[in-house]
Amino acid sequence: MKSVGIVNAQKSVFDTPIQLACGITLPRYELVYETYGQLNADKSNAILVCHALSGNHHLAGKYSEADKAPGWWDSMIGPGKPVDTNRFFVIGVNNLGGCHGSTGPSSINPEIGKPFGSTFPLVLVRDWVETQARLADLLGIEKFAAVMGGSLGGMQALRWTVAYPERVRHALVIAAAPKLTAQNIAFNDVARQAILTDPEFHGGDFYEHDVVPRRGLRLARMLGHITYLSDDGMGEKFGRLLRSGEYQYGFDVEFEIESYLRYQGDKFSGSFDANTYLLMTKALDYFDPARDFDGDLSKALSRTQAGFLVVSFTTDWRFSPARSREIVKALLDAHKNVSYAEIESRHGHDAFLMEDAPYHAVMRAYLNRIDAEVNP
Amino acid sequence: MKSVGIVNAQKSVFDTPIQLACGITLPRYELVYETYGQLNADKSNAILVCHALSGNHHLAGKYSEADKAPGWWDSMIGPGKPVDTNRFFVIGVNNLGGCHGSTGPSSINPEIGKPFGSTFPLVLVRDWVETQARLADLLGIEKFAAVMGGSLGGMQALRWTVAYPERVRHALVIAAAPKLTAQNIAFNDVARQAILTDPEFHGGDFYEHDVVPRRGLRLARMLGHITYLSDDGMGEKFGRLLRSGEYQYGFDVEFEIESYLRYQGDKFSGSFDANTYLLMTKALDYFDPARDFDGDLSKALSRTQAGFLVVSFTTDWRFSPARSREIVKALLDAHKNVSYAEIESRHGHDAFLMEDAPYHAVMRAYLNRIDAEVNP
Repeated sequence: MKSVGIVNAQKSVFDTPIQLACGITLPRYELVYETYGQLNADKSNAILVCHALSGNHHLAGKYSEADKAPGWWDSMIGPGKPVDTNRFFVIGVNNLGGCHGSTGPSSINPEIGKPFGSTFPLVLVRDWVETQARLADLLGIEKFAAVMGGSLGGMQALRWTVAYPERVRHALVIAAAPKLTAQNIAFNDVARQAILTDPEFHGGDFYEHDVVPRRGLRLARMLGHITYLSDDGMGEKFGRLLRSGEYQYGFDVEFEIESYLRYQGDKFSGSFDANTYLLMTKALDYFDPARDFDGDLSKALSRTQAGFLVVSFTTDWRFSPARSREIVKALLDAHKNVSYAEIESRHGHDAFLMEDAPYHAVMRAYLNRIDAEVNP
Repeated sequence: MKSVGIVNAQKSVFDTPIQLACGITLPRYELVYETYGQLNADKSNAILVCHALSGNHHLAGKYSEADKAPGWWDSMIGPGKPVDTNRFFVIGVNNLGGCHGSTGPSSINPEIGKPFGSTFPLVLVRDWVETQARLADLLGIEKFAAVMGGSLGGMQALRWTVAYPERVRHALVIAAAPKLTAQNIAFNDVARQAILTDPEFHGGDFYEHDVVPRRGLRLARMLGHITYLSDDGMGEKFGRLLRSGEYQYGFDVEFEIESYLRYQGDKFSGSFDANTYLLMTKALDYFDPARDFDGDLSKALSRTQAGFLVVSFTTDWRFSPARSREIVKALLDAHKNVSYAEIESRHGHDAFLMEDAPYHAVMRAYLNRIDAEVNP
């Protein structure tokens, strides 16, 4: 399958102050983003792809031939792929508060001449939608052919349909949930406490101490990975496989699953910003579009005008199929147009990132329909 | 329901060296234990109750009238209760490596005049069985009417039937598993890494630094609690209940579930020994009675002579009913006598500790049968 090839990120400065849901106003911020494909003449073929907790704007392609890995959704996005860049103009944005180029806790706050750190405000899903809408304005896109994403990205797509009903033709909501459960919040809070109580966190201002709360971030990521994989998938891949074939009776890696988790934790803790991680988990916790409508999700979605594709994966226990079905039911109760696919998979929550024929066939079929609507 | 009343712990010294499964020999150790009820004339009515990860020998009753809470299984054990102390002589032992009086990492190692700390060996389930057998010898008990326990306690009961087939009349294996899955090990390893990477752990020798790796132990316990409760049970009890009714947009307690977990973590980290916690999780990881029998659990259990009661709880996802059914199937394949009960519960893994009429009815019925055998 062909790739979008070598890509470049772009950056835009937004000088109009934005009042965030938490009450704080940011006078100015930058967003970094990438685009793939060509915007058509009537600017009707744009697709916004929203990222999840540790994602970013780099969806597909490579920055140079030497790059080891392409963007995080390269299997989904490219010429001839389900999100076909020969037909769609695809946009990936690093969310406000991120750590990949958009203004975030690790950015220099010009007012104080040092990183925002603890002074960076919490950002909610609705704030991201607002900043993404301003980017759309800048790019001259009045209405998206689709807004889509997996996990927290799917939540942004859902929020888009409520915040800007007239600007979203279709929403593709994948491996998401209408709000977190107590258990979801509990996992997030353990991850946060790991970071917040790391002595090198320094209340969020670790930058000035020239350290990183690596231990806390590592634990958070290890824990996250457990919830991204399915019990069965983990069992098939690792089982009780021993690193050395025999019990060593110590605290070094004994089982392969320990090696995998520690490696993932180490890698992540050396590259991701701890404050961004905290902020992303809080955005997840706070997400609850029904909250403004007496807890009635159907009421919240009654104003939407988009067509919906909702996709879940059988072994996803972070946001199980039952959670996706809550969204589907609310949409049906509101007499909205919704397609739903529950994909057989052993990859748990991570399945939304994977290349899988039945999953991609569903995505391709739905996106073909959108293509027929916007590229006549 | 009547309690066993005021109880006292006893302590015995074992001077015969014990070679542990890890290869290390302990020249001497102490075990602290409690007993309830009276041993009958032919010493046939003794029940050994094995404890789980954070449990101890204090099963029932109080040490003084002023005690706020009774022993951890007071609902199960006492006069007229399922494990009826009017009919059985019940023994609770703090496991070797524990932190409630038996020799463990926080005990003074007489050879060096300071706590064992990092020098304390890893102890496996089979080692506990060995030390418990020596305690039985001391008490003159040749054969237990029953060995029983929940979770890691159930694993000890299972190991007893393999290690000493002729010394166990019945085994009650509750909310247990024949071995951990990759996911179980993964959760344990995150908990261990939280402790091991806490700067105040000092490689296990924190005692001499007059500190405690409280942050790590707190995280380990918070994480543990998530796996002890069911998703549904947590949802019913906490849901998305907010501490203050409104979003506060900060990292203090926002949701009630956060308050619960942090409270549990704080309480535990102030009272439990970090090295014991590590050791207990490793004993869980290593438990795998089928390992000596080419991975064939049925073969491992073929030598057992006990009658078995296996109990699981529907919403337990730490050791799910499917894991208990593996034990049952292996026993049936080995033509053993086994009763199995899958109890409807919304309390997850914690259900084994709770007072619940159907659960207690099953336990009572099975124990009545044992009573009829040993107290004619």
